[in-house]
Formats: sequence, structure tokens, C-alpha cells
Amino acid sequence: MNNFISTNKEVVQRLSRYKSVLHKLKSLGFVKVFSDNLADALGISPALVRKDFSVFGLSGNKRGGYKIDDLVGQLDTILGKDEPRNAIILGCGKIGTALMNYKGFAHERIRIVAGFDVNPAKLDPAAPIPMLDMAELDAVIAREQARIAIMTVPEAAANHTLELLVAKGIRGVLNFAPVALKSSAGCIIHNINIAMEIENLFHLVRFAEKERIRETEV
Amino acid sequence: MNNFISTNKEVVQRLSRYKSVLHKLKSLGFVKVFSDNLADALGISPALVRKDFSVFGLSGNKRGGYKIDDLVGQLDTILGKDEPRNAIILGCGKIGTALMNYKGFAHERIRIVAGFDVNPAKLDPAAPIPMLDMAELDAVIAREQARIAIMTVPEAAANHTLELLVAKGIRGVLNFAPVALKSSAGCIIHNINIAMEIENLFHLVRFAEKERIRETEV
Repeated sequence: MNNFISTNKEVVQRLSRYKSVLHKLKSLGFVKVFSDNLADALGISPALVRKDFSVFGLSGNKRGGYKIDDLVGQLDTILGKDEPRNAIILGCGKIGTALMNYKGFAHERIRIVAGFDVNPAKLDPAAPIPMLDMAELDAVIAREQARIAIMTVPEAAANHTLELLVAKGIRGVLNFAPVALKSSAGCIIHNINIAMEIENLFHLVRFAEKERIRETEV
Repeated sequence: MNNFISTNKEVVQRLSRYKSVLHKLKSLGFVKVFSDNLADALGISPALVRKDFSVFGLSGNKRGGYKIDDLVGQLDTILGKDEPRNAIILGCGKIGTALMNYKGFAHERIRIVAGFDVNPAKLDPAAPIPMLDMAELDAVIAREQARIAIMTVPEAAANHTLELLVAKGIRGVLNFAPVALKSSAGCIIHNINIAMEIENLFHLVRFAEKERIRETEV
């Protein structure tokens, strides 16, 4: 299972990105697309585009290009267009509530069905996206067929919350808590550590400047 | 420069993670640490830890371990502990304002000095972290020595905003707009596409389930 994740994660990411680019091309009135164009858009080689497409039985040819409608249809079948994309949010703090109302999800047909928090002061069952007590986790996951959760809990609560979610049937987690959680056989984790990303940027910019100074001196 | 970024990004990320682990060990009262412990914490080989440390002149020895205080001090020198870590936020929408008040930054001594927006309705110069008109960008960047920006603007504004930021002296950008921006010689970009991360999780979970069903059938 862990091998599966590591070998397939990149492929699935490429397929998602092909689909995103194809939708944009379609909205521009394009009908056909060449592997070279997709390769440019994704910053990869045209050969890799063609390999991905042939592995997944996406038909077309190098000279004539691919019909965008056909590709989108086949990618939807592979990636699951019509499946419910219901997700829950654990942690109704600032980041959690911002994500509940994030407009970018609608475009990908992702629906946040509820938020949960251990702090009664943060709950609001009457909100457009209800913020609920943890006791309702079971019922919501079952009713909404939610298998994906976004975790915006404090660092100290991250491990415990993950265990709970996996026990309740969650199979994928986007983790914003500043602790690197590990994928298991039962649950795939993507970690986003915002503070660490910014800290790394500071370090990289500082390194790049030192490098520039050294190049000037040589 | 682009080679520099790709070869050094992983090293800098490891150094940041060593430092983070070391601070936690220190707060637990630890005095010494072995390369094996750090390797376990980062999920890498002890040999790579020792290689990183020797490349950067971090002293210690395999048998006796490393003194945590020494390592932290040397990592601070390499990574720049005392440099100002002032960043600005472009886009004062839901995600932008949530990040302005994100508690996780203080721990890494990252300070958000101001937010900016093109929409006058979103501005609030009197807020604890002022939300300002774009006209004040120059003055704030100069006064606060901000070289890092977080972009939470809509997709359509992303390219234009990036160009503006680079022209004003910003050297690193954490981009939340759902468009993959590319690092240039003058500016290092980290892209975080939250909707795409969640979409990928849905795809990966779906793939993993198919795989499980196939394994059961065989």
C-alpha cells in the first residue's frame, strides 16, 4: 500500500493537472491539443505525457493530437467525476473557518459538509456549513459519505485526531497541523506546514543572496 | 540560479527540520543527540544526517553524539536566526486574513507586517496588522525590509501580482492562488494549491480502494 502511494501519487497528480489544463483550454474554445502543449503547461516531457496517456488508454496520436472532449471524458472516468467529494474539517479556528468558506473548492466540486471542534464556544450548528460537536462525527461521516478530512487542529491534538478519524472511516487527510503525520495502510496523508514553508523561503532567499554575492566576488 | 534552487531546496528543508526537532528535544531537557535519532525523526538515513552536518561544518562525533546547544547555535548561524523575518500578505480575503492571525508563525519568529488588497472595502489601516492600499507597498517593503510575500489573490490576479512584487524587491513568494507560478532568477516560488491537494486525495483514495478490491479478488 505504501509503495502504491509513492509510485502513484505523482501519476495521479499529473492526471489531475492534465484535466485542469484541458478544462481551461476547452473554455477558450480549443477542440484539440497536442502532447507538446500539455508537456509545456506541466513542465514535463512530451514523451511522459504520451506514456501517461497510453498507460491509461487515453487515445490520440502524436501527429493529429488529442480531442479535448475525449480526454476530459476519459480522465473523468479514471479520476471519478461523479463521485461525491464531501469532506469534513477538524478544527474550527481561523484557518479552518477560512477553508470552510474557500471559493476555490466549488470549482473542483469539493464540498465541505461540516466542521468539528472540541471547544463548545466555536460550535454553530445553524451556520451554512454547520460547526458541530465531535459527538456528531459518526453520523455526519455516514450520512455524507465523507472519506476525506482537513485537519486544522493544534499540533498537540494532531496525532489523537488522526487516530480518531481513521477509526471513523476517513481514508485521506490534508493536515495543516505543524507536525509531519505519516500515511498508513488505511489513510493517505498530505502535510502542509505553512510556517515551515515560509521559514524555508527565508532560508532559500538568504542562501541565494550569499551565492549571488560569491559569484560577484569571483 | 535555478540549479541552485533545485539542489539546495532539499538540504535547506532538512536543516530546518533538524532545527525544529532539536528545539523540541531541548525543551524536553535533552542535552545530546545522535545522528540515528535525527535520522529516525526525519525518516532519512543516519549517513545523510552526518553528511549534511559535515558539509556545513557542524561538529560532533558518531559515538559521542552532538551537543544540542552547539548544533542549534550553528544551525542558527547557517539559517539566519537573527535576521528579520518580516513578510507581507497580498490579498485580504478569507485565507489572507486567517494567515495574518495564524498563531503558528510566532513560533518560527515570522512576522506578518501588513496585508494589501486592491479592494478598498477590505482595507483597515488601523487593524493590529494593517490592511493597506497597494500604493503603500513600496514604503512598507522598504521600512520593514520584507523580502517574502504570501499571495492569496484570485487566480486571475496571480501573474500580475507576482510581477509587481518582484519589481518591488520581493525575493520569495508562498503562492496560494490556484495557478502554478514558476521560480525565476529573481524570485523563489512555493506553490500551495489547496483545492488540488484535496482533489488529489480523493483520487488517491479512490485508486487505493480499487487496488484493495483487486487484491481481494485475486
